[in-house]
Amino acid sequence: MIKTKKQGLLIVLSGPSGSGKNTVCDEVKKGNKNIWESISMTSRKPRNSEVNGEAYYFVSKEEFEKNIKDGKMLEYAEFAGNYYGTLTDSVFKHLNNGEDVILVIEIQGALQIKKKIPQAIFVFLLPPSMQELKRRLIGRKTESKDKVMERFETAYKEINELSKYNYVIVNDEVKAAASKLMAIIKAERCRVDRIEEVFLDNLEEKIHEKLVDKNLENKPLEMNNLK
Amino acid sequence: MIKTKKQGLLIVLSGPSGSGKNTVCDEVKKGNKNIWESISMTSRKPRNSEVNGEAYYFVSKEEFEKNIKDGKMLEYAEFAGNYYGTLTDSVFKHLNNGEDVILVIEIQGALQIKKKIPQAIFVFLLPPSMQELKRRLIGRKTESKDKVMERFETAYKEINELSKYNYVIVNDEVKAAASKLMAIIKAERCRVDRIEEVFLDNLEEKIHEKLVDKNLENKPLEMNNLK
Repeated sequence: MIKTKKQGLLIVLSGPSGSGKNTVCDEVKKGNKNIWESISMTSRKPRNSEVNGEAYYFVSKEEFEKNIKDGKMLEYAEFAGNYYGTLTDSVFKHLNNGEDVILVIEIQGALQIKKKIPQAIFVFLLPPSMQELKRRLIGRKTESKDKVMERFETAYKEINELSKYNYVIVNDEVKAAASKLMAIIKAERCRVDRIEEVFLDNLEEKIHEKLVDKNLENKPLEMNNLK
Repeated sequence: MIKTKKQGLLIVLSGPSGSGKNTVCDEVKKGNKNIWESISMTSRKPRNSEVNGEAYYFVSKEEFEKNIKDGKMLEYAEFAGNYYGTLTDSVFKHLNNGEDVILVIEIQGALQIKKKIPQAIFVFLLPPSMQELKRRLIGRKTESKDKVMERFETAYKEINELSKYNYVIVNDEVKAAASKLMAIIKAERCRVDRIEEVFLDNLEEKIHEKLVDKNLENKPLEMNNLK
């Protein structure tokens, strides 16, 4: 009856540090096998247990800069002297394969994608309150007080970018937030602009013709009549 | 953290006769107590068991025409010499009460609403195939062959209006179709344009000030400090 576009959906999930982006994304992937989470490329050195191709593809600074120069990056940003970004090709390989692709990225990168692919789905994840955000950032215990303060200040600024997104989810509980994101994906698949074609196939056209054929009016409407 | 608009969502569900609009709507209402299904007003005579205020409000032709003249109808149409329509006031009473309102109406009425309230959510329900639609229409056994043919022809025409809707759902299975409609409602509640205000309340602002106050840098971040 309808033919939807074969290409998957591109979902961009952003939110301040401590909003729980990665946890929510993991929960969504658990419940939905057709979602592929994009793997970022970075020029930073791998830490102890980090395996290339898991959380990141690790490349040299030179290689990253060559990718930028060659126009291969869908988005990228520099943090603390290291590059982080997404390769256009790897995202489109999965999209064209019919998979939905989720990018868990910073706001800076998300806004670059919005310029290139405005029809992507932009979702902003918020902590339940700034107080809870503070608790989560301090709770990590892996970062200095200065770093926590910096992240907290960044969060304040980032929340102003919220209006550039399509959806906002308050992450007060991971399962509830993931369920909202799954609803967004399910709903977006029903959008009329995702339909490529409405088709009334040959047999259906025939049925239609037979139905409006006055000569057949008194014959029973059975499939046998339509051959 | 965010304050969403108190007003409920207005969902307009249309689709050809035999697409299963009412069945899907009933299923959605079962799973969602915050949805109110609007009751249409009609000038047609009640049938045997029909109770006023259940499926319809029954009024005289004169009364209906007075409502039209007084601008009280959100939408209306005439079928077979009878008026059918929706009172603006009753819809807004429920919306302003924070309830979501679903209107199960014909395409003609839906397009009138689109002009007045473009931010309403327009959902088009399709049968799985025209063949299945034919089966359903014939299966009703309550209508003459002419009526079935007329409905079938109307369905063909109506499907062309699909592009004016936001979402399309193929009703191959009632529970699956209802689940898609529920996902649409859940997703629409997360839309950024549903947010009235992002607030960082007083206490949170205080926390922020304390966090960036260098003099407090060595003091522990406890709630007690913030009073």
